[in-house]
Amino acid sequence: MTDLHVATAPRHRSGEPWQGGCVTVTLDDIQQAAHRIAGHVRRTPVLEVSPTCVFKLELLQHVGSFKPRGAFNRLLSAREQGALTGSGVVTASGGNAGLAVAYAARELGVPARIFVPESAPAAKIARLRTLDADVVQVGTEYAEAYVAAVEAGEQSGAMLAHAYDQPEVVAGQGTLGLELLEQIEKFDTVLVAVGGGGLIAGIATAVGDRAKVVGVEPVLAPTMRRTLEAGELVDVPVSGVAADSLGARRLGSLAFEAVRKYGVESVLVEEDAIVAARTELWREYRLAVEHGAAVTQAALSSGAYKPAPGERVVSVVCGANTDPATLG
Amino acid sequence: MTDLHVATAPRHRSGEPWQGGCVTVTLDDIQQAAHRIAGHVRRTPVLEVSPTCVFKLELLQHVGSFKPRGAFNRLLSAREQGALTGSGVVTASGGNAGLAVAYAARELGVPARIFVPESAPAAKIARLRTLDADVVQVGTEYAEAYVAAVEAGEQSGAMLAHAYDQPEVVAGQGTLGLELLEQIEKFDTVLVAVGGGGLIAGIATAVGDRAKVVGVEPVLAPTMRRTLEAGELVDVPVSGVAADSLGARRLGSLAFEAVRKYGVESVLVEEDAIVAARTELWREYRLAVEHGAAVTQAALSSGAYKPAPGERVVSVVCGANTDPATLG
Repeated sequence: MTDLHVATAPRHRSGEPWQGGCVTVTLDDIQQAAHRIAGHVRRTPVLEVSPTCVFKLELLQHVGSFKPRGAFNRLLSAREQGALTGSGVVTASGGNAGLAVAYAARELGVPARIFVPESAPAAKIARLRTLDADVVQVGTEYAEAYVAAVEAGEQSGAMLAHAYDQPEVVAGQGTLGLELLEQIEKFDTVLVAVGGGGLIAGIATAVGDRAKVVGVEPVLAPTMRRTLEAGELVDVPVSGVAADSLGARRLGSLAFEAVRKYGVESVLVEEDAIVAARTELWREYRLAVEHGAAVTQAALSSGAYKPAPGERVVSVVCGANTDPATLG
Repeated sequence: MTDLHVATAPRHRSGEPWQGGCVTVTLDDIQQAAHRIAGHVRRTPVLEVSPTCVFKLELLQHVGSFKPRGAFNRLLSAREQGALTGSGVVTASGGNAGLAVAYAARELGVPARIFVPESAPAAKIARLRTLDADVVQVGTEYAEAYVAAVEAGEQSGAMLAHAYDQPEVVAGQGTLGLELLEQIEKFDTVLVAVGGGGLIAGIATAVGDRAKVVGVEPVLAPTMRRTLEAGELVDVPVSGVAADSLGARRLGSLAFEAVRKYGVESVLVEEDAIVAARTELWREYRLAVEHGAAVTQAALSSGAYKPAPGERVVSVVCGANTDPATLG
């Protein structure tokens, strides 16, 4: 069971203006997000590892993943609109999204209440508490925790932050794409890990008119692939080594719209390729990444994605929340 | 006992043209080195962590430290002069310098013979062998291994690579300083870890006319500090958590010249500050660093170095050869 095993998010109950389906995230939204979150997130560096491959080192972001971009944009947007009250924010995630919301809330001086199932690992709960979050353990899986978070938000007036399927979250993640355009003179392709699709939706919107965007998923968590095949949002069984970060059962509706609009390609990588790529990233680059963040390197190293001669590829290395003891 | 516990290097026996004392590394040497080693080393990125602090992420260099810059410059310079024969290169180091020489030699297609004492850890020997180095275990400490390396070089015609006190090595390390000038719009100060002084000598030569350079050492390995106090090269007792990378007993003569010429300042950091800074670099930035590479952060976090208001500081994070299991 993973953090993001939430099926359809009951957005109509969230108290948010967005009802889904009729909102498109635009490049302008992302540019506004970049302005809004500047100074709150790190402009993470890029590393040219060969003439045709550049890493975007987003694992060096605050709390070890790209998620603070979306979390800050969500909270700061709400604050601009007067919707971020002293009741703060609620979310359901013991993973990267939860860490990001807890971090952003602490930095902005509002309380964060994070709902996780009773089975959530003690280490994750402890980490959230070091960020001053109020951690509430509810139910046996994340779907229950999510419902509890929504209800708590409605009762308390706290705003709900979703892990990936809110316009402000997608726009925040898209700021990573804007940075690529500023940091790298020329690139043809961006490889991005896909869980619920918030990151790839944002990046596709930011760079999709200028570069090919490729979504990479584990064969055991092929949520975007199955959704594209079905032509509609469907629940997808997920498991495997990367499921703790890429284990969304259902693609976000905003992601679904963006990946179709920008013709995002889908690549799947095997479990052993993910494990080998994670080891390679440590051995050859001294990058300590979680399995979910190793899928883009896995696509390149395994040949699941074969760049054309001279094709210049950006590999987004997007998360470092891993036990370093397992790297050696 | 550490890799660099070599007292006076018997340079007069090394077969090298340089006899010490009359050679100065210049900015022009460093610029030539940058041209020479381009494509062989990574241009490591910088990360702005606050408006007044920038990390230079040299831990992402090949084989996890800055040392390949000097090793490539040494080998490529020799090749230009016809001094790099099929006999290859010899050195004495089971640490970062040995890894760098082994890596550079492999990349350039020449054999590397690395001398280490019989007590060298099996893990270090295994790592060198994965780089195709011929590892020879001799004697009980590095001073004996060094003498054996020099003798082997004389007998075989292999060139000797020193860990820090050769002009080509210092010029190679100085290329990191040139990158800072290109990558960072404005900075006032550079904090650099000091072992034998090859890196700080190169950086001071590259940027010393334009920024203050501060050498940071553990209180238990204060080789540069004691040398500056003595006003001459002296042997200094060394120990502590960072001695495996900063444990040179004697400052390089080129470093001694450079640090006096550019007025390099000296800062010492306590053991517990080094340990805390290494933990902080992992927790807050997901950087997996060895203790020796944590001393600059230790200087900032402990207050051993207190920047003036608005002073913009570059902290060189220079090595990642550490057991990741000890980070968590």
